[in-house]
Amino acid sequence: MEPIKHLEIKKNEKISDLIENMSNCGFGARKVSEASEILTEMINDKECKIFFGLAGAMVPAGMKKIIIDILNHTDIFVSTGANLTHDLIEALGHKHYKGDEKANDKELNKKGIDRIYDVFMENKVYGDLEKFFDENFEELSKCKDIKNLLWKIGELLNVNENESILKKCFVKKIPIFCPALADSGIGLMIWGNKARGKKIFIDAFEDMKEIIDFSWKQKKKGVFYIGGGTPKNFIQQSMQFSTPASYGIQITTDRQESGGSSGALLKEGISWGKMSEKGKFTNVSCDATIALPLIWGYVKNELSQ
Amino acid sequence: MEPIKHLEIKKNEKISDLIENMSNCGFGARKVSEASEILTEMINDKECKIFFGLAGAMVPAGMKKIIIDILNHTDIFVSTGANLTHDLIEALGHKHYKGDEKANDKELNKKGIDRIYDVFMENKVYGDLEKFFDENFEELSKCKDIKNLLWKIGELLNVNENESILKKCFVKKIPIFCPALADSGIGLMIWGNKARGKKIFIDAFEDMKEIIDFSWKQKKKGVFYIGGGTPKNFIQQSMQFSTPASYGIQITTDRQESGGSSGALLKEGISWGKMSEKGKFTNVSCDATIALPLIWGYVKNELSQ
Amino acid sequence: MEPIKHLEIKKNEKISDLIENMSNCGFGARKVSEASEILTEMINDKECKIFFGLAGAMVPAGMKKIIIDILNHTDIFVSTGANLTHDLIEALGHKHYKGDEKANDKELNKKGIDRIYDVFMENKVYGDLEKFFDENFEELSKCKDIKNLLWKIGELLNVNENESILKKCFVKKIPIFCPALADSGIGLMIWGNKARGKKIFIDAFEDMKEIIDFSWKQKKKGVFYIGGGTPKNFIQQSMQFSTPASYGIQITTDRQESGGSSGALLKEGISWGKMSEKGKFTNVSCDATIALPLIWGYVKNELSQ
Amino acid sequence: MEPIKHLEIKKNEKISDLIENMSNCGFGARKVSEASEILTEMINDKECKIFFGLAGAMVPAGMKKIIIDILNHTDIFVSTGANLTHDLIEALGHKHYKGDEKANDKELNKKGIDRIYDVFMENKVYGDLEKFFDENFEELSKCKDIKNLLWKIGELLNVNENESILKKCFVKKIPIFCPALADSGIGLMIWGNKARGKKIFIDAFEDMKEIIDFSWKQKKKGVFYIGGGTPKNFIQQSMQFSTPASYGIQITTDRQESGGSSGALLKEGISWGKMSEKGKFTNVSCDATIALPLIWGYVKNELSQ
Repeated sequence: MEPIKHLEIKKNEKISDLIENMSNCGFGARKVSEASEILTEMINDKECKIFFGLAGAMVPAGMKKIIIDILNHTDIFVSTGANLTHDLIEALGHKHYKGDEKANDKELNKKGIDRIYDVFMENKVYGDLEKFFDENFEELSKCKDIKNLLWKIGELLNVNENESILKKCFVKKIPIFCPALADSGIGLMIWGNKARGKKIFIDAFEDMKEIIDFSWKQKKKGVFYIGGGTPKNFIQQSMQFSTPASYGIQITTDRQESGGSSGALLKEGISWGKMSEKGKFTNVSCDATIALPLIWGYVKNELSQ
Repeated sequence: MEPIKHLEIKKNEKISDLIENMSNCGFGARKVSEASEILTEMINDKECKIFFGLAGAMVPAGMKKIIIDILNHTDIFVSTGANLTHDLIEALGHKHYKGDEKANDKELNKKGIDRIYDVFMENKVYGDLEKFFDENFEELSKCKDIKNLLWKIGELLNVNENESILKKCFVKKIPIFCPALADSGIGLMIWGNKARGKKIFIDAFEDMKEIIDFSWKQKKKGVFYIGGGTPKNFIQQSMQFSTPASYGIQITTDRQESGGSSGALLKEGISWGKMSEKGKFTNVSCDATIALPLIWGYVKNELSQ
Repeated sequence: MEPIKHLEIKKNEKISDLIENMSNCGFGARKVSEASEILTEMINDKECKIFFGLAGAMVPAGMKKIIIDILNHTDIFVSTGANLTHDLIEALGHKHYKGDEKANDKELNKKGIDRIYDVFMENKVYGDLEKFFDENFEELSKCKDIKNLLWKIGELLNVNENESILKKCFVKKIPIFCPALADSGIGLMIWGNKARGKKIFIDAFEDMKEIIDFSWKQKKKGVFYIGGGTPKNFIQQSMQFSTPASYGIQITTDRQESGGSSGALLKEGISWGKMSEKGKFTNVSCDATIALPLIWGYVKNELSQ
Repeated sequence: MEPIKHLEIKKNEKISDLIENMSNCGFGARKVSEASEILTEMINDKECKIFFGLAGAMVPAGMKKIIIDILNHTDIFVSTGANLTHDLIEALGHKHYKGDEKANDKELNKKGIDRIYDVFMENKVYGDLEKFFDENFEELSKCKDIKNLLWKIGELLNVNENESILKKCFVKKIPIFCPALADSGIGLMIWGNKARGKKIFIDAFEDMKEIIDFSWKQKKKGVFYIGGGTPKNFIQQSMQFSTPASYGIQITTDRQESGGSSGALLKEGISWGKMSEKGKFTNVSCDATIALPLIWGYVKNELSQ
C-alpha cells in the first residue's frame, strides 16, 4: 500500500505541482489528480480520439477560453445549446457580468437583467441575436444538419478563433453536435424566422450518422464530460452502438443515488458496453468551475506543445 | 407567525393526510406539501394550462403509471428521449428489473445486462426495438416533426393507453415534445434505418412553433418539472418568449451553487420573465422517486374526478 | 430477476401500501422501502437491541413526535445537543414557527427571531432556558454524567412523556447520550451558571462505559441513524469496540465522495468491524423530514402493538 | 456591472494567479476566490482573532500539513475528535494509505484494514494508541479539561511541531477544543483505562468558559469552517453568546435545504447574532480536499511573512 502524503503548499506553488501532489491524497483531491492524469494520457495517446461533452452554464461562468483550449485536442465536440448561445452572444460583442445570487429577481426583471445563479446578462442581447439571424438567415438556411449550421454560424462570426467556441469549431473543422439545439437561444432565433415564414430544414437525426461512424472507426477513444445532460448521453450512446471507450473522466455535482444519467458513475457504462472494462476512468464530484481549471492547469503543463 | 406542528403518524395513515400535515413542518417536508398544494391548485384552475417536463430515468425506476396519470392533466409534455425509449421498450413487452448498484459491471456486460443504478435491463431489448422500427419505418417516415413521430409510435403500439406514455399522448392528443430525441434509443433506431439507406426527414426546430404559439395564447400557465435537463429548459424558454408562468414546481437533486439550469431555483426564472413575480412556485430538493409518489398521492385525493 | 412494478397511486392510498409497493421500484423509492423493512425487522427481532442516533434540526422541523414514538422501540439513544435543546425549549412552553428561507436575516435579527432554514424561533426562549437552569441548578449539579443530567432535566419537566424527548427518555429510562452536549444551548446554560461561580462536574467520558458495555452484552444489534455527526460516530465506535451490528439504516443528504463520516455508506463499516458482513443495511439519500415519516408510517403499521 | 473575464490557464500557472482570476468568474470559482480574499483579509487584520473549526476526515485525506500551517494564524481551534485521533496515530509512527472506495469491505476486514472512503488505515494502530495511553495515563489523568488534556497529549509526542496538529497546538499554546472528544479514538482510549479502573476526570463543560470569554473580549473576529459538525456549531454559539463575527468562510458539501447546521449558509447566522450584518462571508460548496489547498495556496502567497 502506498502511504498518503500530506499536501504542502509553498509560496508561488504551481497548479501542476499541486495536482501531482494531490495524487497522494484521498477523496476529491485524488480524483482531480486522477482525472488530470487520465486526460493527459488520452491526449498524448496518438491512437486515441477524444469526445468532449459540455453541459452546464460554463460560458457565462467564465470557462470559455479553457473550453476553446481543450478543443485544440478534441476530435468530437457535443454541447448543450445554451453554451453555444452564450458563446454566440459574446462573439456578437456582449458580455456576461458578475452578479449576486441573492439579488431581487423582480428588480432584475425590471432592469432587463437575466440571472444565472451569480452571473448576470442583459436581456437586450436577444435583440442582437435576432439581428444576426435575420441578416444571415439565407446563408444559414442552406444548412441541412446541426453540425453544418453551427459551423456556418462560426464562419459568419467576426472574431478570432480563440475568442469563440463556434469559431474555433469552424476553423479547426471540429465536428460539433448539439442534439437539443432547439432547446436554446439559437433554436429560438431559428423558430423566430420560421414563425415569420422563412424556410430552413435541419434534420434532427442527421448528425448521429457522423458521430457513430466516427466512433466505429477508432481504435481507441476517450470521453471527457463536463456536466451530464444530452452531451454525455449522446456520446455514451455512440460508444454503445460502436465500441467502448478506453478512457473517461467526468466532472459533475449531480449524484448517482437518484439514478439519472448526469449523476451516474462512468463505471456503470461498462455494463452497457459504453466503457471498456479495462479502461481508465474516474469521476470528479465537484463544481466544474473549480475542478476544470485545476485539471486543465495540470494537462497544459504536461503537453509537449 | 404560525407554529410548527409536529407530525403524528397514525396506523393506516393516508398519504394525503401526511402531506397535509407536512405543511406545518419545516425543510423538505414543507416543500413537498407546498408542491402538492400548488400542483392541485394549478390542475383545479380551469384557466391554467399545464406544461410537464420529465427528465431522469423515471420509467426504469417504476414511475411510469404515475406519469401516465399526470398526463391526464397535462396540456404540453416534454420528455427526455430516454424515458420515451424505456416506455417503448416496455410497450414492446420487455421489462426492467430490480438490480443492485453494487453489481459487477463486467459480469453484467457478459450476461447482456445494462445497469441503471439499481435497475437492470436486458440488452436484447434493442433487438425488438430494431424490429419495431424496421417493420414500421415506412409509416414513421411520413412524419415531419418530432411530435408527430412520437404520436405515430404511440399509435402503432398494441397496448392500453394506461400502459404507455407514448400511447397515452397519442390517444389523448397531448402534444409531446422531445428536443433531444436523437439523443436516445429511439434516435439510434432512426439512425440505424437511415444508415441502411432509408429516408426520413424530421425537422429539428418544427416543434418549437407549437409550444411557443400555445404558450402565447394562454391566460395562465403552470410548469411541473421532474428533473431538469432539456425538458425544463425547453418549457422555460417557451415562457421567456411568450408570457411567464403563474405556477411552478420542480423536483430535483441537483444543486443551485454549480449554476446549471437543472439545479437552478424557479425563482431565478423571474429575472428572465419565465416565471411571474406573483406566481406560486416551490423547489423540492429530493429524489423524484420518493417525492413524486407523495405529491401525486395528495393531488389524486384532492381532485374531484 | 424480479421485474420493476410501476407504482400506482390510488385515492386514499395509505403510506404503508405505498412503501410496500416502492420495494418494486428503483432508486430512492426502493431504498426507503428497504429501510422500512429493515427497521421493522430489527424492532420485531426480540434479540435485537436498537441504537438510535439523531442529528440535524429535527425538532425545529416538526419531527419530535415521530422521534418520541421511535423511542418506544429504542434501547440506546444518542442525540446532538441541539435537538435536546429545542425539545427543552418546547417543553418550557415555547414553539418553533413556520418561516421563510428567503427572509432578510438582518430584519429577523432586529425582531429577535433566529432562523433555521425555513423555521423561526424567538430569541427570547433563551430567557426561559436560563430561568429553568437557574431554578434547578442545585438539583442538576448533583449529576455526574451526561446521561443522568439529561434524565434529570427530563424529570424536572412538567410535560407528558409524549410531548418531550427528554421526558420520554427519563420516564422510560432510555439511556440518552450526547457526547457534544457542551456544543448546544443546554451547554450554554451550564456554562452560564459555572461562569457565575456555581459548581457542577460532569465527566466528559463517563457515558462511554455504559454504551460500550451494553453493546458488548447484546447478541444482536441494530443501528438507526437520522443524519450523521457525533450520534452516528458515537454509536459506530461502540460497535467497533464490541461487536458489529446486524441491522442498519441511515437517512442523510450528505455524500460519500467527500469522505466524512456523515456521508459514509454503512457498508464502509464492515471493514472496521462496526457492521456485520452478513448484516442487513441500507442508506437512504434523502432529506429526513421527507423520508422519516414514510419509513415510520410503514413501521407503525407493521408493529403488532 | 463588472464583466466576467474568462479564465486563461497558462503553462506553469500559479495557484495564486488562478484564484485571483477566478474572482472574475461565476459559481464555485468565484466563491473559492472570495473565500481566499476573506481569509487573507482576516489574517492581515491585526484586530481580528481567528476561530478555526475542523470537521471531516481531513487528516486521513492528506490535509494535515495545511491545517498545521493554518494553525500558525489561528487563535482558537475546534476540531472533531476523529481528526485529532488520526493526527495522533500518525504522530505515533503510523500512516494512512491510498485505498479504493470500491474495495471489498469484507476482505479488508479480514486483512485488518479500516476504510475511510478511498483511504485505508491498518487496524493495528489501535494497539499503539492503547500503548501510548497506558504509558502516559498518569500524566494525562492530571488534566481537568479537554484543552489541557489535548495539550498534554501534544506535549508527550516525540514529533516536530510541523508534523502534528496536537504538537503544534501545545507548542504554540493555541487553545484547542473538542466538545465531542468522547466521540473518537482518543475517547475510546480514555474509556479503556477507566474501564480498567484507572481514574481521570475531565469536565465536559469547562472549555466553554474559555472560548466564550475569549470571544467576548475581541474587537473583531473571523470564523473559518472546514466542514460543519460540532466544531462549527461550538464556535457559532460562542459568537451568539458574545458578539457576532465580522468575517467568515465555510467549505462544505452538505446542503442548506435539509436544514442542518452543517449545510446552513453563514448568512443565516445574522439572524442569530452569530455573524455581523456588515460582515464579509462566503460559502464554498466543494469537497474541502479540493477547495482548501486552493484557498490556502492563495493566502500563503498574500501573507507577508
